[in-house]
Amino acid sequence: MQSSVAVIGAGSWGTALAMVLADNGCKVSMWARRQEVVDEILSERSNSKYLPGIRLPETIYPTADLQHAIKGHHYVLVAVPSVGFRNTMRELSAFLSSDVKVIHATKGLDKDNLIRLSQVMLEEVPQLKPVNLAVLTGPSHAEEVSRRSPTTVVVASQNRVTAETFQDLFMNSYFRVYTNPDVVGAELGGALKNIIALGAGISDGLGFGDNAKAALMTRGLMEISRLGLQLGAAQMTFAGLAGIGDLIVTCTSKHSRNWRAGYQLGQGKTIDEVLSSMNMVVEGIYATKAAFQLAERHQVEMPITTAIHSVLFEGRSPRAGVEDLMGRGKTHEMEEVARISMSWES
Amino acid sequence: MQSSVAVIGAGSWGTALAMVLADNGCKVSMWARRQEVVDEILSERSNSKYLPGIRLPETIYPTADLQHAIKGHHYVLVAVPSVGFRNTMRELSAFLSSDVKVIHATKGLDKDNLIRLSQVMLEEVPQLKPVNLAVLTGPSHAEEVSRRSPTTVVVASQNRVTAETFQDLFMNSYFRVYTNPDVVGAELGGALKNIIALGAGISDGLGFGDNAKAALMTRGLMEISRLGLQLGAAQMTFAGLAGIGDLIVTCTSKHSRNWRAGYQLGQGKTIDEVLSSMNMVVEGIYATKAAFQLAERHQVEMPITTAIHSVLFEGRSPRAGVEDLMGRGKTHEMEEVARISMSWES
Repeated sequence: MQSSVAVIGAGSWGTALAMVLADNGCKVSMWARRQEVVDEILSERSNSKYLPGIRLPETIYPTADLQHAIKGHHYVLVAVPSVGFRNTMRELSAFLSSDVKVIHATKGLDKDNLIRLSQVMLEEVPQLKPVNLAVLTGPSHAEEVSRRSPTTVVVASQNRVTAETFQDLFMNSYFRVYTNPDVVGAELGGALKNIIALGAGISDGLGFGDNAKAALMTRGLMEISRLGLQLGAAQMTFAGLAGIGDLIVTCTSKHSRNWRAGYQLGQGKTIDEVLSSMNMVVEGIYATKAAFQLAERHQVEMPITTAIHSVLFEGRSPRAGVEDLMGRGKTHEMEEVARISMSWES
Repeated sequence: MQSSVAVIGAGSWGTALAMVLADNGCKVSMWARRQEVVDEILSERSNSKYLPGIRLPETIYPTADLQHAIKGHHYVLVAVPSVGFRNTMRELSAFLSSDVKVIHATKGLDKDNLIRLSQVMLEEVPQLKPVNLAVLTGPSHAEEVSRRSPTTVVVASQNRVTAETFQDLFMNSYFRVYTNPDVVGAELGGALKNIIALGAGISDGLGFGDNAKAALMTRGLMEISRLGLQLGAAQMTFAGLAGIGDLIVTCTSKHSRNWRAGYQLGQGKTIDEVLSSMNMVVEGIYATKAAFQLAERHQVEMPITTAIHSVLFEGRSPRAGVEDLMGRGKTHEMEEVARISMSWES
């Protein structure tokens, strides 16, 4: 039987994932907030603002009516920007039945409460069952997926059947899906990696080399893993596609907003100059503030996040921030990782 | 008291590390096989073939006489190419006393026996004590180190005192040293990452995007970690500077020989065409052969290595190799990691 899926959000990522589902034979209903997007898809089969030059399959049915988009679908994919996530879930709440399976593909944290987006989902849609929730994340530029370039992602759910159901819906010859039980790690990896992308941009903006950037990414991954462990994530998730994989894509692509913002900071611009020139949300700035607060609350040592925080919010110069990092006391590479470590016998 | 260190090897890496030691106030004796290199350093304070444009400190004393280079030094750094490693150790053997501490900074495996280079050291210099051996590795282009650009490395030794002794010798404001007890992982990370760099080059050469490359690097790291675990390494070393850190530098730099060889394969050249055009050792080709054999011997699943092996040695096309990878059965991201895993309760 043909599966039918509702996709909430018609930005680049929602549209690209709708295309994957359509390629797999699903009937896809896609909600866009703005009627012009719906009209363009209906008349031109394109979404030129978000995926220029890409033709959308006929089996994607756009609508600006949320109830209509959801109605009768057993599977819902949410792919809206993190800033609007809570409001969208609130709007959806009236139309979602308790037996529907919902997967979200949004990276970020709730700004006010420092909680993960699946937690926001459960707050705003109390009839949802945690076993029916999943998260899709990993190293995936939407535009490459829309061109059917080989891509791998993670689908995380605390419930194996839910994870495998979404794996079956999405997987195909160019889109490879790995399942993972660690929802916490999958969501934190996607949100916190933006801090490190900012840092990688700062390093490049200062004119440092590949050695410095690789060090920052590696040690950055270690410290976000450390925070993740405290928040209930599994170490190995950070070593996988949702952690290192996503980090690599974000830190090495010049298309990354976070990298670009960091680069300009490294070149000597102030945070206000950077933000006004970009005219876009720079997720890593919120994530730095959130991680800094969480690190204090949970007493996790996060030297790179602390240095970036001091540059963003305490007026420290990027070069002095790097000197802070290089001048730290001597460290044993392994002793900082809490749960899984090896050490010399003493 | 001023420490004195013998550096064996005056290529780019040996010379850059000699400069770090000289910057730290050590008296450095540096052995070069060729007299012209010695002469140029003595007369011009430069090593223009390996580090063009860099001025060497006065406290680096070059010599082509191995016995003279070693004599009276308590610390020895070996930084010669992996192909000549065994022969150099054999030559050194006559001059090394049993109480000297030796660190090597060479990445690779012994081609014939598939063993690590510290094992080769012990075979060729039986008077050396394992507790006095260490390995220096991590994300470090020599040329950036010689320009004093911020760099981090790992010093691994089974003995804490040895590790910390070398940490003290090398660490300074631009060269940050982390200690690690896992010699096996440190050596394997540096050798096996070249396989993945070849694969990343193939992916780029085929015209695939950032998603595909990040996937290859992430899943590649997982499978070399898996082999490493079987050979006695610690998982966490692969998540650190000797693993992911070095992998990032090697896969994202266009200066990497391994990446370039892979890129040409992806563009349709044969292995013979690639090798004759490069006129250099491509470590990843040996490493692929070695890892493929080790994986068979230890029954470790290594799909990416297997695919690269089939391209290099079995005439399979790069595109078909990628299709093999994308078309594998469905996989749970965590279940493949042997010692540290989390899973759903079943």
